[in-house]
Amino acid sequence: MVSKAQIQFIRSLDRKKERDESGCFMAEGDKVVREALSLPPDSLFRIRLLYGLESWLEKYVTGATNHPVETCIVSEQELHRISFLKTPNQAVAVIQHPMVEAPVFDCREDLLIGLDQVQDPGNVGTIIRLAEWFGIAGVIASMDSADLYSPKVVQASMGSVFRVNMVQTTLDPFLLSLPGGFPVYATTLSGAPVYQIELTQNGIILLGNESKGLTTRYLQLATCNLSIPDFALGTRPESLNVSLAAAILCSEFRRR
Amino acid sequence: MVSKAQIQFIRSLDRKKERDESGCFMAEGDKVVREALSLPPDSLFRIRLLYGLESWLEKYVTGATNHPVETCIVSEQELHRISFLKTPNQAVAVIQHPMVEAPVFDCREDLLIGLDQVQDPGNVGTIIRLAEWFGIAGVIASMDSADLYSPKVVQASMGSVFRVNMVQTTLDPFLLSLPGGFPVYATTLSGAPVYQIELTQNGIILLGNESKGLTTRYLQLATCNLSIPDFALGTRPESLNVSLAAAILCSEFRRR
Repeated sequence: MVSKAQIQFIRSLDRKKERDESGCFMAEGDKVVREALSLPPDSLFRIRLLYGLESWLEKYVTGATNHPVETCIVSEQELHRISFLKTPNQAVAVIQHPMVEAPVFDCREDLLIGLDQVQDPGNVGTIIRLAEWFGIAGVIASMDSADLYSPKVVQASMGSVFRVNMVQTTLDPFLLSLPGGFPVYATTLSGAPVYQIELTQNGIILLGNESKGLTTRYLQLATCNLSIPDFALGTRPESLNVSLAAAILCSEFRRR
Repeated sequence: MVSKAQIQFIRSLDRKKERDESGCFMAEGDKVVREALSLPPDSLFRIRLLYGLESWLEKYVTGATNHPVETCIVSEQELHRISFLKTPNQAVAVIQHPMVEAPVFDCREDLLIGLDQVQDPGNVGTIIRLAEWFGIAGVIASMDSADLYSPKVVQASMGSVFRVNMVQTTLDPFLLSLPGGFPVYATTLSGAPVYQIELTQNGIILLGNESKGLTTRYLQLATCNLSIPDFALGTRPESLNVSLAAAILCSEFRRR
């Protein structure tokens, strides 16, 4: 049984302000919540409360001693009331996230991704998922990018938010704080073709806003401006979606 | 002023059955409708009726003589009634699409993409957009993939549906009809790492369902099974989204 106050609190986590104040966010659905349950004990994420259908809780939580989690059995109707999904899926978890001020990384060998005003939560979540696949040491999102703990980002990341180092911060001071010689790759339609450029193992790949691209001062600040050439047959496609561009660039950096 | 019958007809285009019967589909929003208007006269697409806000029609259609298009001025409220978007955007077009039974391509040099039960319209649309970027000669979607002219596919393609050769057909006979020696690349988590394989300029890249992957008989039928290696740092990411996988594979085929 969920109380009215609980419903109110959970639903408030749709707003960034409430997430910032409570330090909590919401993870939803069988897959993502199970990812949260399977985190190692030293993870900095803490499941504060887990709402689930009785059958689901029995199957995945009861008896699992390495994760003492406070649970609450909910009915299908209650699940509908607390869920942000059109089709709620068995479980909802309120999770406390770590407070990360700056990413920790090895500047000699680590690859990072920087997001400048990437506003679609689906894109941001997809890039986080991608970052895990390609072993990216950190995703640094500008303050005006989609909030890293918004329900849609968490959903699109398919649980990768739990395993990828990520931080939301002001991009300029962060970039200026990078050690000298740490390569900054700016992605822009007018950059040099990525296939022909010598890429380093370490560095940060900067990706810009869905329609405006990367802020001009980042292009100037970068060690290298790069682009993904098109091979269109006589037509003029406008641009690649930012998460597709991220996928292609990560693949290029990693395969070499 | 839109009649009740028109509204009914437009809204019926949300259903595949009605689209198949009428041969029409709907394109929405400033960007996509302008793409339709800018198609060359020999395009096989025909704008049947264009609904738009008065200001929009005046700006983009009035006086444009190379595209005689039947237009209908609508109010904001009417646009809301005929639109499938949450935030309707200035124009809606009913467009007749070409009836393509089989893709025409040059088997010595063309690259195709085959979709086996790719069910999310966002993924299918994104892959069509990608196909234009990488000069893919044809996208062949199985009958149980998302319908190529569903509103969400058209939207996600950002207008690339107008410029990419695509056909929805039964995949088995199509694959069997391919000329001998035309390479078939099947994408699967257990395939050989794409970075280490010799890739041909021509061929078809097969991509499978979002959760089940590619049907087993296509893996057996293929010339080559390939995968995108992960570089995860100690974690075990589940899989890449199918449109990200498509992006990485297209990039790999094209860069060489």
